[in-house]
Amino acid sequence: MTKVCLVIGAGAGIGGNVGKRFALEGYHTVLCRRSDEEGLQKLVADIEESGGKATGYLLDATKENAIEERVAQVEAEIGPIEVVLFNLGAQVGNRALGDTSYKVFELGWRMATFALFRLASAVCPLMEERGHGTILVTSATAAVRGNAGQHSHAAAMGGRRMLCQSLNAEFAPKGIHIAHILIDGAVDAPDTLGKMLGEEAFQQLREARGQEHDGLMLPEKMAETYFHVSQQHRSAWTHELDLRAFSDLAWWNHAP
Amino acid sequence: MTKVCLVIGAGAGIGGNVGKRFALEGYHTVLCRRSDEEGLQKLVADIEESGGKATGYLLDATKENAIEERVAQVEAEIGPIEVVLFNLGAQVGNRALGDTSYKVFELGWRMATFALFRLASAVCPLMEERGHGTILVTSATAAVRGNAGQHSHAAAMGGRRMLCQSLNAEFAPKGIHIAHILIDGAVDAPDTLGKMLGEEAFQQLREARGQEHDGLMLPEKMAETYFHVSQQHRSAWTHELDLRAFSDLAWWNHAP
Amino acid sequence: MTKVCLVIGAGAGIGGNVGKRFALEGYHTVLCRRSDEEGLQKLVADIEESGGKATGYLLDATKENAIEERVAQVEAEIGPIEVVLFNLGAQVGNRALGDTSYKVFELGWRMATFALFRLASAVCPLMEERGHGTILVTSATAAVRGNAGQHSHAAAMGGRRMLCQSLNAEFAPKGIHIAHILIDGAVDAPDTLGKMLGEEAFQQLREARGQEHDGLMLPEKMAETYFHVSQQHRSAWTHELDLRAFSDLAWWNHAP
Amino acid sequence: MTKVCLVIGAGAGIGGNVGKRFALEGYHTVLCRRSDEEGLQKLVADIEESGGKATGYLLDATKENAIEERVAQVEAEIGPIEVVLFNLGAQVGNRALGDTSYKVFELGWRMATFALFRLASAVCPLMEERGHGTILVTSATAAVRGNAGQHSHAAAMGGRRMLCQSLNAEFAPKGIHIAHILIDGAVDAPDTLGKMLGEEAFQQLREARGQEHDGLMLPEKMAETYFHVSQQHRSAWTHELDLRAFSDLAWWNHAP
Repeated sequence: MTKVCLVIGAGAGIGGNVGKRFALEGYHTVLCRRSDEEGLQKLVADIEESGGKATGYLLDATKENAIEERVAQVEAEIGPIEVVLFNLGAQVGNRALGDTSYKVFELGWRMATFALFRLASAVCPLMEERGHGTILVTSATAAVRGNAGQHSHAAAMGGRRMLCQSLNAEFAPKGIHIAHILIDGAVDAPDTLGKMLGEEAFQQLREARGQEHDGLMLPEKMAETYFHVSQQHRSAWTHELDLRAFSDLAWWNHAP
Repeated sequence: MTKVCLVIGAGAGIGGNVGKRFALEGYHTVLCRRSDEEGLQKLVADIEESGGKATGYLLDATKENAIEERVAQVEAEIGPIEVVLFNLGAQVGNRALGDTSYKVFELGWRMATFALFRLASAVCPLMEERGHGTILVTSATAAVRGNAGQHSHAAAMGGRRMLCQSLNAEFAPKGIHIAHILIDGAVDAPDTLGKMLGEEAFQQLREARGQEHDGLMLPEKMAETYFHVSQQHRSAWTHELDLRAFSDLAWWNHAP
Repeated sequence: MTKVCLVIGAGAGIGGNVGKRFALEGYHTVLCRRSDEEGLQKLVADIEESGGKATGYLLDATKENAIEERVAQVEAEIGPIEVVLFNLGAQVGNRALGDTSYKVFELGWRMATFALFRLASAVCPLMEERGHGTILVTSATAAVRGNAGQHSHAAAMGGRRMLCQSLNAEFAPKGIHIAHILIDGAVDAPDTLGKMLGEEAFQQLREARGQEHDGLMLPEKMAETYFHVSQQHRSAWTHELDLRAFSDLAWWNHAP
Repeated sequence: MTKVCLVIGAGAGIGGNVGKRFALEGYHTVLCRRSDEEGLQKLVADIEESGGKATGYLLDATKENAIEERVAQVEAEIGPIEVVLFNLGAQVGNRALGDTSYKVFELGWRMATFALFRLASAVCPLMEERGHGTILVTSATAAVRGNAGQHSHAAAMGGRRMLCQSLNAEFAPKGIHIAHILIDGAVDAPDTLGKMLGEEAFQQLREARGQEHDGLMLPEKMAETYFHVSQQHRSAWTHELDLRAFSDLAWWNHAP
């Protein structure tokens, strides 16, 4: 039976590119995203044209049972989930405390922390029974330091990181590899950064820092590291790593 | 008008003792706890017998508007909240992932992360208008490392710490001192450790490690540091510190 | 016999002010600094005029046996060292790798790391025999993150912090309290910041950020926290804490 | 001209295996180790038998100019150093403070911190001129937490990590990739762990935790990750990552 790579949060950036990378290696890639049926089908078509296998679903991760039922259906109908990428962001832009409603704060947690807990609750028993499996978690600088305007995002991502460590402590000895991948910089991703900035500003940023400057993180290059981590031998697993563009300051460095 | 020290989570351990310490310095201490009216009134009586001012309320922090209304009432009827201690724990004991229900996971977040967000949303605008104020946050080892069985607790506390850093980044320049106090060990507290262990085991632990051995953290001694932090001059504020018994291993050290 | 507070690095900033604070509480303060006999005698005179006891010595901490002999002489002639403040800095300004000679790099380590190791080797056996003692270590942001131009400083301070944790692991259970105090900002100290910037720039900084703005850390206020930490009950010791001005960004925060 | 991979610390564990991995990809691997000419020539022969290129040198990294001259000679006679692995350990076993001589403490720094500074001083200008290069640094748990008996090791490794961050801040924007690889567990390496434990205990450990249990880190598997990191696209570099066996506790977790 085909090995499955399930992607929760499969936009045109990290999620889609990691999906493509695993498809290239023979995984049946199951791509899930909240909206944009057209974009989703384009990803599926891209993979199929390259000779890979892919299936796409719209999935609202905050909806009751949406993750749980998708996991069950994929396992029943497509194949065992060998790798899952949890790639949901929860960035709501910079908002002062007074502009951060309870609803926004809770939504951050539902997307960034609770959805991972639900996913882990669904896949870990399956992976544990098989004795192996990989959970790749995209994370953000906000997981390791709070900042002004980041109340919702930082609390949600800080929770995500500590949850990854707890999952690792319980499940690594059972053969499940959990990796917390800290993305410390701007990704050249039209679906997220592009939408946040608007088309024009995004293109300006691409010209100034991206393209031949390599100052924006290229998701197809990041995907190489996601794939590598999933293939590490169990005697030498990475639990935490960071990724940033060579020309960018690390989060702990101020500009001179 | 009397300065108020508001304590959210005023049991017989840290909360009650920090309350007493501030009362001793002339603060009107407002003690809030979820249950045990008798224990609450004993704390109030103890403070009043020592010549201090105290008021006690039962408060279920997870209930809608409970924190917000208490803050408003205290400000209107007792005095300006100069210091608030957020002292709610969210330890649910060691539970494997399979034994951690969605409800338990969410409750951890509601107690440990969201309740602090709500409290901050209520008091920060008041403190900002006055140009000063202090938010003391009791935290736990789980805020800096996950561990097996700690899925709910670590995710909630990790969120708490990142929220404290975000609040600090926005509000320290406005005169509000936020301190994240990491309690890295067992506290000699009958209401929490005592209940978790049961009376007999708690007394055994006290005899083995507590009392003249000073291997359990004494809340009346911890209260000295809470008070000191609240009195730091604004040119020299502490945002993060740890507390542990001299004979205990730091969280990052294994037994040899 | 008088309790002694020994200060290694007693300029007009943190060292001198912590010395004064302990003298005020009845400690015989022994002030050691590398140079400026006049400044040293002024500190001694200030303390004596306030009714305290103080002795001053010039001490080149990088010189063989200088620390070791001073410790022995103080213990023999003045009294038991109850508290020692290790306050040597090793900031050499921003220097690119190509401008950082082997000599400079080694000197950073000799001042910031090795001198603390030598001091600990001298005082720990004495404190261990008495069953108590306190080692306060002034540290810097460079202990927790490297930065451009900080090759010597960061390596030396990173070593200092790990050494503090190692000392804590061995000696805390023996009653010796070691505290790593991370100074995350500019101190209003004429002997260090003043000399680094030059008189004119220092006065401009004071006018812009210091004085009534409280944006420079005031060493006499910082001294309150140093003193508090030394007095913590052994059931509730702090091993690591940070200090910064309320209006300053924490090291982990970028400017917006 | 052949690309060179220079290995400082090329025993039969990580160093030798990383060397083999790069040789397999066409790098001329230059292996340097302090002693055991026979072991060194065996490594060289192994690589040559597999069709790779290798040269071996005995090198005492603590000796004046030894590193600097080797770098110059390799660049002049073999080829440009594209990748350098700094793999010197500085573990001296568990030693109480009283058993840690000044000489041992200084040697730890000379091996673990200063030798890396010297190596970086020698290769960074060359790599900067070429606009690219990779410095892989093997590090240890002691770089992020001190522990009893680890005074020398932790101080040296803490300095190493902060130096890596400083080098990264200055040289990443110039195209030099510096990676700090934290080895958090026991490596199945006869030259280091084997010698530390003695032959018999090492074989017992191998039977209990290694071999089919995969509880000892296999250096040939670790080498895959070292190689991957060196090949990351410059828009997505990792600066810090950890490696441990799946069945081992992370350094931040105590046994339950």
